[in-house]
Amino acid sequence: MTTITPDLLDDLAVGAAVLGTGGGGDPYTGKLLARSAIEAHGPVELMPLESVPDAARIAACGAMGAPTILIEKVPSGAELDLAFDTYERHTGHVLDAIIPFEAGGMNSMAPIFAAAKRRVPVIDADGMGRAFPQLEMETFNVYGVDANPVAVADEKGNTVVVQARDAARSEWLARGVTIRMGGQSWLVNYGMDGATAKRVSVPGTMSLAIGIGRTLRKARVGRRDPMAELVAFFAGTHYKHAKVIASGKISDVARSVKNGWSVGVATVTPFEAGQAPVTIAIQNEYLAAEQEGRVLAIVPDLVCLLDLDTAEPITTERLRYGQRVNVLAVQTPPIMRTPEALAVFGPRCFGLDKDYVPIAG
Amino acid sequence: MTTITPDLLDDLAVGAAVLGTGGGGDPYTGKLLARSAIEAHGPVELMPLESVPDAARIAACGAMGAPTILIEKVPSGAELDLAFDTYERHTGHVLDAIIPFEAGGMNSMAPIFAAAKRRVPVIDADGMGRAFPQLEMETFNVYGVDANPVAVADEKGNTVVVQARDAARSEWLARGVTIRMGGQSWLVNYGMDGATAKRVSVPGTMSLAIGIGRTLRKARVGRRDPMAELVAFFAGTHYKHAKVIASGKISDVARSVKNGWSVGVATVTPFEAGQAPVTIAIQNEYLAAEQEGRVLAIVPDLVCLLDLDTAEPITTERLRYGQRVNVLAVQTPPIMRTPEALAVFGPRCFGLDKDYVPIAG
Repeated sequence: MTTITPDLLDDLAVGAAVLGTGGGGDPYTGKLLARSAIEAHGPVELMPLESVPDAARIAACGAMGAPTILIEKVPSGAELDLAFDTYERHTGHVLDAIIPFEAGGMNSMAPIFAAAKRRVPVIDADGMGRAFPQLEMETFNVYGVDANPVAVADEKGNTVVVQARDAARSEWLARGVTIRMGGQSWLVNYGMDGATAKRVSVPGTMSLAIGIGRTLRKARVGRRDPMAELVAFFAGTHYKHAKVIASGKISDVARSVKNGWSVGVATVTPFEAGQAPVTIAIQNEYLAAEQEGRVLAIVPDLVCLLDLDTAEPITTERLRYGQRVNVLAVQTPPIMRTPEALAVFGPRCFGLDKDYVPIAG
Repeated sequence: MTTITPDLLDDLAVGAAVLGTGGGGDPYTGKLLARSAIEAHGPVELMPLESVPDAARIAACGAMGAPTILIEKVPSGAELDLAFDTYERHTGHVLDAIIPFEAGGMNSMAPIFAAAKRRVPVIDADGMGRAFPQLEMETFNVYGVDANPVAVADEKGNTVVVQARDAARSEWLARGVTIRMGGQSWLVNYGMDGATAKRVSVPGTMSLAIGIGRTLRKARVGRRDPMAELVAFFAGTHYKHAKVIASGKISDVARSVKNGWSVGVATVTPFEAGQAPVTIAIQNEYLAAEQEGRVLAIVPDLVCLLDLDTAEPITTERLRYGQRVNVLAVQTPPIMRTPEALAVFGPRCFGLDKDYVPIAG
């Protein structure tokens, strides 16, 4: 059993930002909130998925909105706590454990600061195995868990409980509410029991994130190639395959907030002379990397941008002209590549007119 | 005690549409729904406000959205019933009686079809004394009743419960949800007890509407001047003062759906030669009538457009070029003209840069 203590948070923040593929919100703010919650309420148990009691009542949580807005609308942690209070009052049940709804900078930290305050464990798993921009893009939904009720809260003390006909309609309504809450809100959803969680979750993603962060930190300290170390680390996990698909300079970032998401396109001009530019589609997360119309990597596989020198993952809202980056692609685990899963978060679910092609066999 | 039987519905529909000042939704659809609900479940008691038991649990209800959309998105009545189920489940209380949140074509009928199905009385009163376009524009709110929780439901079975910090924020969030529900939704809100209802409601507005409809019908049958009869009728009520402020032809209607409301401006060109056109500002309801910059009537006083020949009230969504109309102004009762009330639904609350001027002293 792992206990999440403040000294683990740096590695977790970095690793979760890698898994967040540019999304999932700013890891720095999340880390500060997790640290202060642990200092105030004590460390948080990270419970392996297989150890969750079958009858345990759990729910997922995280932030919804455009990560660009999270930079200015800094949360206090009380928003998510209010979403939990609202959820528990509405359902009439006190939760026994919390599961992250995605892996990502803020959204791997949010369950920790909520769990510290509420004195419950965080489950070492999540519902995306990465970050995705939409509420219905969850293995929880793919494998039959109802997203509803969805409790939504903001920093002004306003709350909304959505009970929609399916997860896509929950997304539509909760996104509308989030836009009216100023573009960022805090959610508790996907209530389920422990037995169900074991069947529908991507396991081990919190400890995977800690491992990624640790690998990058040790490489930096030992002056070894962080990308080579990271590829080697992934080979020993259930994600297995990772590779660097491009290295270059950010030569353009077109970005806007649209329908409540940060959307845009980034262009990476490779260092190697004569190489065509790599374009990266953004919807909160990096969705796909293409070169001359050829797919290098595409959702649900991960496209991660890391600073060339520091190997720090770069979230979409921090991306800017002139940054020098490695583009890392990571294969997602099998639970995320079934036909049912691709029907919910394959390329066409993002409006990309491409089929899913795994980055490696 | 009045019992609402199908034979009263024609008068009520006409009278409520007059009080609705062009808003409150299509009276025809509402009437059909009320009639079929009474046929299925029996007549509905119309309970005088002063007879409501002090401890009775009551809540307000009606439709939210742009009335133009209600023409195409015809309701079945199940939407509002679902909003009541959601409200009662969320609060844990079964309601003893229903109060209309406004007087208006659809929204004076909605409480009836809900009450028939749920076998509770409708209270002879409402929270606007007319129709207004926003949820916070209620005497309930003016005199201290919390609008929250607000249960919102649509025709697809989706529901949302809003718990906001104040009524204006409830409006903002519920309107956002309504837009995402397709521009029309069904609400239950302003839960209160009977003692409170007596203090904060505009009394007698359902029977007032029936009286207005009866007056117009009898004038038509007796071939008497319906406008003169209506002015005489109002003189005997707590609204007291009414007058025809213009008669003419609709020479222009500029209308659009904006931020979830039907907004626009209508122009009435008077029949009398040399008279300047009368412009009428619209936000779901007719808000103000002006001539050469001079206010003829303005919110919260009522501006009603009635067909010149039939004396049928014309709702904003049915207004069109070429219609010949009488413009009737009606003074609102004192409870709606206090400084507190004008701070919530005076002209400036609609973005009109005018002070309130009563149509008569």
